[in-house]
Amino acid sequence: MKAEIITIGDEILIGQIVDTNSAWIAEQFNLGGIEIYQITSVHDDAAHIKSALDNAKENADLVILTGGLGPTKDDITKNVLCAYFQTKLVFHEPTFEQIKNRFKNRNIDLNKLNRGQAMVPETCTVLPNKAGTAPGMWFEKDDTIFVSVPGVPFEMKYLVENEILPRLQNRSKTGAIYHKTVLTQGLPESMLAERIENWENSLPKHIKLAYLPNPMSVRLRLSAVGTDLEQLKHEVEKEMGTLKQLIPEYIFGYDNETLAEVIGRNLLENGQTLAVAESCTGGYISHLITSVPGSSGWYKGGVTAYSNEIKQKMLGVSGDSLLKYGAVSENVVREMAEGARQKLAVDFAVATSGIAGPTGGTEEKPVGTVWIAVAGPGKTIAQKFVFGDNRERNIIRSGQTALQLLRRQVLKG
Amino acid sequence: MKAEIITIGDEILIGQIVDTNSAWIAEQFNLGGIEIYQITSVHDDAAHIKSALDNAKENADLVILTGGLGPTKDDITKNVLCAYFQTKLVFHEPTFEQIKNRFKNRNIDLNKLNRGQAMVPETCTVLPNKAGTAPGMWFEKDDTIFVSVPGVPFEMKYLVENEILPRLQNRSKTGAIYHKTVLTQGLPESMLAERIENWENSLPKHIKLAYLPNPMSVRLRLSAVGTDLEQLKHEVEKEMGTLKQLIPEYIFGYDNETLAEVIGRNLLENGQTLAVAESCTGGYISHLITSVPGSSGWYKGGVTAYSNEIKQKMLGVSGDSLLKYGAVSENVVREMAEGARQKLAVDFAVATSGIAGPTGGTEEKPVGTVWIAVAGPGKTIAQKFVFGDNRERNIIRSGQTALQLLRRQVLKG
Repeated sequence: MKAEIITIGDEILIGQIVDTNSAWIAEQFNLGGIEIYQITSVHDDAAHIKSALDNAKENADLVILTGGLGPTKDDITKNVLCAYFQTKLVFHEPTFEQIKNRFKNRNIDLNKLNRGQAMVPETCTVLPNKAGTAPGMWFEKDDTIFVSVPGVPFEMKYLVENEILPRLQNRSKTGAIYHKTVLTQGLPESMLAERIENWENSLPKHIKLAYLPNPMSVRLRLSAVGTDLEQLKHEVEKEMGTLKQLIPEYIFGYDNETLAEVIGRNLLENGQTLAVAESCTGGYISHLITSVPGSSGWYKGGVTAYSNEIKQKMLGVSGDSLLKYGAVSENVVREMAEGARQKLAVDFAVATSGIAGPTGGTEEKPVGTVWIAVAGPGKTIAQKFVFGDNRERNIIRSGQTALQLLRRQVLKG
Repeated sequence: MKAEIITIGDEILIGQIVDTNSAWIAEQFNLGGIEIYQITSVHDDAAHIKSALDNAKENADLVILTGGLGPTKDDITKNVLCAYFQTKLVFHEPTFEQIKNRFKNRNIDLNKLNRGQAMVPETCTVLPNKAGTAPGMWFEKDDTIFVSVPGVPFEMKYLVENEILPRLQNRSKTGAIYHKTVLTQGLPESMLAERIENWENSLPKHIKLAYLPNPMSVRLRLSAVGTDLEQLKHEVEKEMGTLKQLIPEYIFGYDNETLAEVIGRNLLENGQTLAVAESCTGGYISHLITSVPGSSGWYKGGVTAYSNEIKQKMLGVSGDSLLKYGAVSENVVREMAEGARQKLAVDFAVATSGIAGPTGGTEEKPVGTVWIAVAGPGKTIAQKFVFGDNRERNIIRSGQTALQLLRRQVLKG
């Protein structure tokens, strides 16, 4: 089964929001064996939506539309669908009851706009939305399924998980797809490709390899398409086994694992704990760590020391070092890591101190200069990096690099 | 001038990555007066890319393609472009020199894949990529411009900023577009719409209003299209002035301002400082704050107290309170906020303690239960929230809600 996602909304096309819905839907559908053929983002414009529907119908068995179902004037999807499926809006009592209950619980009066949300195209199957006010709508025409859901992410997710995927799984058109991704670090894409060239060339035709590089790592994804999921799984795992032997030292994880998750697993296995002391990363490393479910089992906490005063008071950094070397220095970052390790009573502590920008740089220490230290049971290591001039990117790269250094020290024990 | 963005890559269509490039390009182009007609994501597949190019050509004066320019086998964009523009790949010496220099600086040997990256379609204008190895390519055909750039975000951004936008600005086809967004909080979308209905109906035809709701706020965006930017600006600002009078108490900021930015501006005006004490948000609030350039002027730092031990040791929470009420309680969250305020010597401190999930919930305190406190010069306030069962969402909502509460207290002084 092939699907197309159509996201509707001017806010996407002026870049005011990043379309995260499509990636989420694509992932869920793929796991369910439904291939996404295309993602198309269009304006809140009747003619444009109609032409997108026509195009999608040519390539897809299933078209999922998100957005444009709000109660306000710029939301036109419902009217467009009525015209497209030659039907009209009718009042849907169960939806109205659901909206009424929803607002009753929140002590808010219903108004005529909400009543409008209970109007649905007469020929559609209404998908009840327990996460919001606008219901989903399911149409079928010429062997193609069209489903329309709100653009608000958690409402869309509710409908996909509870109404759409279960209905699709009851149909048996879906084939099997199996993906497995290996996460590597330390070799640039082109050198990695050279190293695994023979293996790549020997892959069977129904198994495809993709390189997914980003500044911090290269992910290698194998995708197998067929009919028998267990068989595909077996084949992909076998190929992964061969790959592992070719680049053992560069693999640090699999699939959607994050660096923080991998580190946590290692710490947990060794019964060790972690703390952080952040200056330029300002809480980002701690956030990456605590995004991992169960991280409280190995992460005790951290200090964001955004001022020198806090570096001294909470981490025990010496005033002398701050005066003599400055906050962005090997001495200070080592003292931060060691201070955190001692004061928070953990096995490992990672510390950052740098100039994220856009201001604060000097000739000697330009914006992007970052010191990172890891204090462990055996020793403390520290390393200097010079990233770019973009604040956001500097924070992200510093955080990811700190986790890389930490991972290596944790592996050494 | 109308543009279409085509993003190429299986990784987008299986949901492995979120396409953030398109939103960034859309925003930059809009600021430059270029309207984005559509965003289309397609597979690394020659026929599919070709049909997307054909479709785009019908509606757009400019087509920008991202992705599929890497050195590996799954990257086919360059060959597809050669076929589409009936040309062939030729060796491009300046590109090869640039790649050589790039790798020389990194002490990595060139291999044949990198040499392949210096092969470019004969009829294109090569756009030098100083941020990576794959150059951009500029084609013109039947009054349509086609530009192909790598999918790696910072390489794409480099080429758009330094090579593409300057070239487009030298042409005068572009019209004027002006957007202004007001950020509101406290009224649901439908009630907001009712309140401003007459104003909305009175807007001139070339000024459009859009509602951009998300779980924490509703943004209202005015978009004006015309020829004279100054005139549009003037008209939109006038309409914004009227809007402000209709809903003064619900507006907290404008355009891309974040809540943290708005709080920082207020603190700075009052010469006040801030600290955080985070349990369930685990560094996320601190990260939101330190993402604001210049935040070191009003943010001193914070403590992520992920264990009770740290709550006691670093924030002075009493062991009795932890024992008697548990970490997720009004007493503890108040002590965390007051402890942070005192120990970090700031005017305001915000604290969170909750159960982010997926585990750790009890009947009395289910997953999603979060206490938030704000300690200020006058008093400490605390409030309990019950969010959902999704860890990521609970962290985000807790963080945003904490900033909302903080903002209100900061406004009170």
